[in-house]
Amino acid sequence: MLTPDDTIGLSDVMTGLMQPRPLTIAHILERAELLYSHKLVASAGTEQLTYADVTDHARRLATVLEQLEVPRGARVGTFASNNRRHLELYLGVPATKRVLHTINIRLSPEHVEFIVNHAEDDVIFVDRALLPRIWPSAERMPRVRHWVVLPDGSDVAIPSDPRVCDYDELISGAAAFSGSFEQAFTLADEHLASGLCYTSGTTGPPKGVLYSHRSTVLHCLGTLAAGFIGLSENDVVMPIVPMFHANAWGLPYGAMMAGASLVLPGPSAEPGHLLQLMETERVSVAAAVPTVWTSLTPELSAHDLSAVRFLLGGGSAVPDSLSEAYRTAVGVPITHSWGMTEVSPVGAVGGTRSQHRQLGAEEQTAVRAAQGQPLPLVSMRLLDVETGRKLPRDGHAVGELQVAGPWVADGYFRVEADDSFTEDGWLRTGDLATIDADGYLRLVDRMKDLIKSGGEWISSVELETAIASHPDVVEVAVIARPDPRWTERPVAYVSLSEGSTTSAEDLLQHISPMVAKWWLPDEFVFMTTLPKTGTGKLSKTALRASTRIT
Amino acid sequence: MLTPDDTIGLSDVMTGLMQPRPLTIAHILERAELLYSHKLVASAGTEQLTYADVTDHARRLATVLEQLEVPRGARVGTFASNNRRHLELYLGVPATKRVLHTINIRLSPEHVEFIVNHAEDDVIFVDRALLPRIWPSAERMPRVRHWVVLPDGSDVAIPSDPRVCDYDELISGAAAFSGSFEQAFTLADEHLASGLCYTSGTTGPPKGVLYSHRSTVLHCLGTLAAGFIGLSENDVVMPIVPMFHANAWGLPYGAMMAGASLVLPGPSAEPGHLLQLMETERVSVAAAVPTVWTSLTPELSAHDLSAVRFLLGGGSAVPDSLSEAYRTAVGVPITHSWGMTEVSPVGAVGGTRSQHRQLGAEEQTAVRAAQGQPLPLVSMRLLDVETGRKLPRDGHAVGELQVAGPWVADGYFRVEADDSFTEDGWLRTGDLATIDADGYLRLVDRMKDLIKSGGEWISSVELETAIASHPDVVEVAVIARPDPRWTERPVAYVSLSEGSTTSAEDLLQHISPMVAKWWLPDEFVFMTTLPKTGTGKLSKTALRASTRIT
Repeated sequence: MLTPDDTIGLSDVMTGLMQPRPLTIAHILERAELLYSHKLVASAGTEQLTYADVTDHARRLATVLEQLEVPRGARVGTFASNNRRHLELYLGVPATKRVLHTINIRLSPEHVEFIVNHAEDDVIFVDRALLPRIWPSAERMPRVRHWVVLPDGSDVAIPSDPRVCDYDELISGAAAFSGSFEQAFTLADEHLASGLCYTSGTTGPPKGVLYSHRSTVLHCLGTLAAGFIGLSENDVVMPIVPMFHANAWGLPYGAMMAGASLVLPGPSAEPGHLLQLMETERVSVAAAVPTVWTSLTPELSAHDLSAVRFLLGGGSAVPDSLSEAYRTAVGVPITHSWGMTEVSPVGAVGGTRSQHRQLGAEEQTAVRAAQGQPLPLVSMRLLDVETGRKLPRDGHAVGELQVAGPWVADGYFRVEADDSFTEDGWLRTGDLATIDADGYLRLVDRMKDLIKSGGEWISSVELETAIASHPDVVEVAVIARPDPRWTERPVAYVSLSEGSTTSAEDLLQHISPMVAKWWLPDEFVFMTTLPKTGTGKLSKTALRASTRIT
Repeated sequence: MLTPDDTIGLSDVMTGLMQPRPLTIAHILERAELLYSHKLVASAGTEQLTYADVTDHARRLATVLEQLEVPRGARVGTFASNNRRHLELYLGVPATKRVLHTINIRLSPEHVEFIVNHAEDDVIFVDRALLPRIWPSAERMPRVRHWVVLPDGSDVAIPSDPRVCDYDELISGAAAFSGSFEQAFTLADEHLASGLCYTSGTTGPPKGVLYSHRSTVLHCLGTLAAGFIGLSENDVVMPIVPMFHANAWGLPYGAMMAGASLVLPGPSAEPGHLLQLMETERVSVAAAVPTVWTSLTPELSAHDLSAVRFLLGGGSAVPDSLSEAYRTAVGVPITHSWGMTEVSPVGAVGGTRSQHRQLGAEEQTAVRAAQGQPLPLVSMRLLDVETGRKLPRDGHAVGELQVAGPWVADGYFRVEADDSFTEDGWLRTGDLATIDADGYLRLVDRMKDLIKSGGEWISSVELETAIASHPDVVEVAVIARPDPRWTERPVAYVSLSEGSTTSAEDLLQHISPMVAKWWLPDEFVFMTTLPKTGTGKLSKTALRASTRIT
């Protein structure tokens, strides 16, 4: 027995002998069932369920999808707010090898029609209150065979149409699938598409990012990594970021994998509603775009937010002043994250690390203004915009950020080729950034938002950060205006807090010590509120169009 | 542009469009270089290096392995303690697509010769101090072409033999590979073997577990998951568990992935040395088998261990009394983990969870005595030992624990078939356990250690736990003695603290309230110290052999 076989060569020993277990959303579902059935899902401020309920509904949904004869691989559209039925679709659709296509409810009807037809959605699940936004388009989306209405307390009229049915009726009438979803997957299946999300498409038509089970599970493990977001079963997680876009930053899947309770705030973005939920449900982790965090600031002090341990901001730059306002009022700053729909979406998470402990308060604030370090498995590099050469990681060289990793897109759905992807397999982000010696990412600007003035570049983001630090400024966006002499010059669009009498002169005086003289905007345009994109970010495209600056 | 192509069917949309990035140890190496080059590796209490140093050496090692003409896929043996050169081998060997074969230095010469020949090691890297243990076997391991000596401060004679060379000389003479290790891997390559470790083989010859890059990286992400071990860059991690066995519980890779500093204690297991390191290096996470934790208890109070946040115990059951002793002295209990070489090795991690917060002190201690919940991606099930039927997860039904997951073995290296693996792809662990409704694993005993008495089963582990709770008991092992009337009866082997006069009668009286009367051992055998296995666990096999109980 102790003599190895002499005849065995090297070639047969190259592959590890580990179980060919695939990475699938089915595992997330069944893990939540087996370990965390007692954890809570608070939905829309009106319902309290457990993971046992939600996963039972997902098992019934599996039967419903069979009854509706939705083929494997078919796209299943959702047009819904953050609620528990949407979460059931997050689980039941991919666990049965269909593709969850989350449709952005804020898109124009033309864009919605385009992406539903482009995705060839077979069925659409829609919040009852949102029917008026999408049903009028139904006849221009002829491939959709079923419209399943998600009850949400709304009483808008339900179309009398044979294609329309009620989610709760279907679910309560269906038997729960009793087998193992996980066992239906093989190793190769982990590459199957699990989700589809279209980018907002500020230029050209929207483009679809097609997530796989593998990318979703790995991203999920990324959200659990301690020292980044670090979701655990101790958390109560509230994604304010919509579930209809970029998987709500992966937080619903991350929370279920970790065993954290979930708070899904429903359709209302009303500050009092969100803060009341955070207080009542003892939310520990919440995530939103900066415009939402800004909207909550006036009422922060009226709520007990002592359970909060982590606030995540992303989608666009979080002004220092906003983050510090939270640090003062709640005891927790807003931690920057950097991501894109194409990155599942989280690529990097900010905040301070052990090497910053010795720094003073101001320097720590500066660190917190950076977008931070890439999650495990994510790689980043900077390339010179002009020459395409790799730039040093010295915190000074500014170049285009490119990213790679198993949860980074490789192409767009049904788009032949796209120059967003390099030949050696990296994603061009369109973001200009620096990277430090310890991998800290600092965004300078979107490439298309840079302002070219007198042969030099002005960062619209840095100007916005400076202007936002004025206490009366609520929203600000800086864009370029064509200029015969300087090529382009900056113009600032600003909304002020109610009753403020701050003038352009005041703002110029406020930012003068912070930026170079030739960076000072040529004009300040005051508006009651600034236009937003479908994902709630400030829309520079809309500003350019409205002011005929192109 | 807004019209989707009618001719596209369903079949082409099944695969997600995500980058085909493989999961590799090369990523761990390059991540440590790019993000954590300033982090520290303290080695053997004599050296302080940074990750920049260690990864530079790994890049030189890549060149050395080429110079030595070690083929890709070849097994590279290590016979070494926990030190920084061993860490360099952990990185440089698999990053260049060779297989790191860690050889257990405590095995008998016969077993070492067997596994080196069975693995067909092409080269062996050996701590200088360990040469006397392996060099005498060299002529019986003729396939080993090179012996590379790792300097460790020892002055044992170096054989004058053309096959023998010096690690530091090779490294300092070699240029560092300047390219990207990661880029040399394709998606399919993530299944390549990265490591090989033989089980101790208490019955039959040792069997090799062949890890892959994929299994290692996923296990690594498991060690980062918050709420389990949760390694982060804030940590200083000291694996006392040997790097020559089961990847030191994955902690060296986990620490590098997380960016935590590492403390590698070298060959000495002397309590004063280990505790001094924990104090000086401000260790936050340490891991060891219970026998080591026991050996440290008398000196705990003499050291400042205030940086400790997590102490991991595993390999065999951690007695409550031991865990509680640490909770009292250090403020941190010893957290159970359950694992096996075949599970990379960590499968489950204990400790209390949010649902236990309301429990009283005693109930919390009982929870801490369980092996806990499986890490993300790991699945567990219980099967009836007699019928093979699946048992309920009710905390009562006792059955054989079977596990599945992407870091669980599927077979043994060069073993045709083995009944450790079920037909449907699960690993039979040989452990008897219960599982609760919230997935809590509680080990009852090893199947082979159960004692069958009068048609009923006695758990040797429960008896040991009861006996270990006596303050004078240092080590205890309970085994079965054949009995003509009852089939088997329990016998307890015990070592007592120095000077103790505790008698068998005292121990019987101590445990009587804790166990059924017919469980009480027929005999107590007192020994100065109990025999250990090659991995430092108490060896019941040796006890059975020495007492002719088989």
